[in-house]
Amino acid sequence: MSNPHPAGTLDEIRALIRELPGPDLEAGSAAAERQRQLTKPRGALGRLEDVAEWMATWQGRHPPALRRPRVSVFAANHGVAARGVSAYPQSVTAQMVQNFIAGGAAVNQLCELADADLRVYEMDLETPTGDFTAGPAMTGDDCAKAMAYGMMAVEPGLDLLCLGEMGIANTTSAAALCLALYGGEPADWVGPGTGVDAEGIARKAAAVGEGLAANPSARTDPLEALRCLGGFELAAIAGAVLAARMARTPVLLDGYACTAAAAVLHRLDRRALDHCLVAHRSAEPAHRRLLETIGKEPLLDLGMRLGEASGAALAINLVKAAVACHGGMATFDEAGVSGPSDR
Amino acid sequence: MSNPHPAGTLDEIRALIRELPGPDLEAGSAAAERQRQLTKPRGALGRLEDVAEWMATWQGRHPPALRRPRVSVFAANHGVAARGVSAYPQSVTAQMVQNFIAGGAAVNQLCELADADLRVYEMDLETPTGDFTAGPAMTGDDCAKAMAYGMMAVEPGLDLLCLGEMGIANTTSAAALCLALYGGEPADWVGPGTGVDAEGIARKAAAVGEGLAANPSARTDPLEALRCLGGFELAAIAGAVLAARMARTPVLLDGYACTAAAAVLHRLDRRALDHCLVAHRSAEPAHRRLLETIGKEPLLDLGMRLGEASGAALAINLVKAAVACHGGMATFDEAGVSGPSDR
Repeated sequence: MSNPHPAGTLDEIRALIRELPGPDLEAGSAAAERQRQLTKPRGALGRLEDVAEWMATWQGRHPPALRRPRVSVFAANHGVAARGVSAYPQSVTAQMVQNFIAGGAAVNQLCELADADLRVYEMDLETPTGDFTAGPAMTGDDCAKAMAYGMMAVEPGLDLLCLGEMGIANTTSAAALCLALYGGEPADWVGPGTGVDAEGIARKAAAVGEGLAANPSARTDPLEALRCLGGFELAAIAGAVLAARMARTPVLLDGYACTAAAAVLHRLDRRALDHCLVAHRSAEPAHRRLLETIGKEPLLDLGMRLGEASGAALAINLVKAAVACHGGMATFDEAGVSGPSDR
Repeated sequence: MSNPHPAGTLDEIRALIRELPGPDLEAGSAAAERQRQLTKPRGALGRLEDVAEWMATWQGRHPPALRRPRVSVFAANHGVAARGVSAYPQSVTAQMVQNFIAGGAAVNQLCELADADLRVYEMDLETPTGDFTAGPAMTGDDCAKAMAYGMMAVEPGLDLLCLGEMGIANTTSAAALCLALYGGEPADWVGPGTGVDAEGIARKAAAVGEGLAANPSARTDPLEALRCLGGFELAAIAGAVLAARMARTPVLLDGYACTAAAAVLHRLDRRALDHCLVAHRSAEPAHRRLLETIGKEPLLDLGMRLGEASGAALAINLVKAAVACHGGMATFDEAGVSGPSDR
C-alpha cells in the first residue's frame, strides 16, 4: 500500500481520522481458527495468542509475519523546560540523540537484541516549542507539520512499528495533554519523570495548571490540546500512529509521553488505537491512569521509565514469540497428539 | 566449577542444602556501581537493572554474560492421572515429548527465538509414579535417583538455566505438594490446569485431600512431601535447581508445577532459591498464591498456562536485554551526557 503523505493542515488530519481503515476480520478469524489446532490446551499461550491474532488482524494477512520491526524515536525540545520541571538540563535532549547515533543508549542495545531497525528523528532541537504556561506551544501550521513529519516516517511494508520519544520536560507536556483530554487535577497526571523530587513534582503540577489556564481552547478539542500543550515529538508520534493505521502496520507504543500523544487520536475516535498495543506500563504513576482510561492492558510491567522507545523495543521479542508460535507450532493432527479426553 | 554428582540418598541431598553457596556480593556491587554510571536516570530501566545485578551476583562475575542459555524440560507420568484429574489422556506426555523432538511445540519456537539450547529429558514414561491417593508416589531411592538425574542435567559453564516440565496430571501433584508444604485447603492449590471444568477441579481437590490423608508423613518434611506427592520430573527440577546453585548458574523457573518443585528447597532453606527468578505468573490461580508464599515477583504476567518451560523460554530475551543494556550502554562520561541539574 502506498504511503499517504496528505496532511497539510489540522483539518486534513481530522478528515483522515474520519476514514480510518477497520480491522481485517477475515485474517483475524483465520488466525483464531489456526490457534485452536495448535498443540496446546486452548488458550494456554495466553496473551501470545491474542497478539498473534491482533497481528493478523492489523497486518491484514494470515499468517502474520514479523521480519522487519522498526523502532522510531522522535526527539524535540519543550519551552516549558524553563519552568524547572525536569531533573536534567535541556541540552540532554541533543546529547542523548548523539548517544543514540553512537549506539550507547539503552534503546540501541534493545534494538540490536530484537534485530530491529532504529531510526532517530531530531526535530529542530535548537527551537523548542513555546512555553505553554504563557500560551500555545505550537501554531496550527507547526503542529500539522510535526504530525506530517511523523506520518512520513512510516514507510510502506513495515511489519511492526515501535514508537518512542526523547525530550526533556515532555512528561510535563504529556500531563498537560492528559488533563486537557480527560480532566481531573494536575496532580493526577504529573509524577517524578526522570527523577524530580516532591518540589519538582509540585512545579510540574503548577506548570500544568497554568498551561490549562493559559490555553482554554485546549479543553475543547483533542487536536487543539495537542497544538497548545504538546510538543513536536508528541505530534509526530500521533501522526505516525495514524499513518501506520493507513499502511496496515501494527504499532507498539512505549511509555507515558508516547501513550499520551496517541491518546489524542483515541479521544477523537475510540477505535483509533485498535492497531496499537501498549508495550509496557511505565513506573510514571499517571501511565496507569492513562492506560485505564484508554482501555489498554500493557504487555510488560517492569518498572521502567526511560522513554526513548525502550519499553517498546523490549516488547518486540514478545510479539516475535507470538508470531513464531502461531506460525511454527505443529497442529494436533500433524504431531499425532491426542486432544482432550472425552469425559 | 566441576559438576557435583553426589546425591545417592535423600540424606545426601539434605547435606548439600546445608552447604548452599552464597551470593557473590563483590560481583553484585560492581554491577550496581556500573548501573549508576550508565546514560539513563537512576533506576529508569526498572527490573532490567535488578536482573543485571542478579545475574552478576549469581554468576559470580562482572559483567554478567548470557551467551548460552539452556532450556531443560523434564517429562514424567503420574499415577494420580488415573483419578481423572486432567483434560488429556496420559499418552499425551509421550506424544508431546515426540512433538518437542520434532520441533513442533511452543517451546521449540521460543527456544529458537532466544537462541537457546533445548534439552528434553524423558523419565521412564512407561512407569508412572504410584497414585499418591493410595500411598507414596515414590520410594526414597526413586526420589533421590530422580533428583540426581536432574542434577546431572546441569553441565558446568551454563550462563542461564531455564527449567520446565511435561507430565499429564502434574498440576494435581503440584497442588498436593503445596498443600503439604504450606497448609491450607486442597481448593486453595488446585485449578483448571490444562482446562478441566468445575467437576474436574473438584476431582483434583478430592485427590489432593486423599493424597495428604494417605501420606501423613508428607507434612513433616519437604523432601518427604516430594517423595510422597511429587513426581519424577518435579524431583528432577528440584535437583537441577540445587545443582545450578553449586555451579553458579542462575535459573529461570517456569509455571506452577515447576515452581512447586523448587518450593521444596525453599521450604528447607529460605535462601535456596535466591539464584532463581520466576519467569512468569501462570494463569493457574494457585501460582499467584505460591509466588506470594515464596516471595517471588515474576518477570512476565501474560496469562500463559502451558508448562513445558514456555514461560521461562519466553523470558530469556528479557534477561538478555538486561545483560545487553548493562554491558553495552555508554556511561555519562563516555557519551558526554550531562547528569541531573543542580537545583
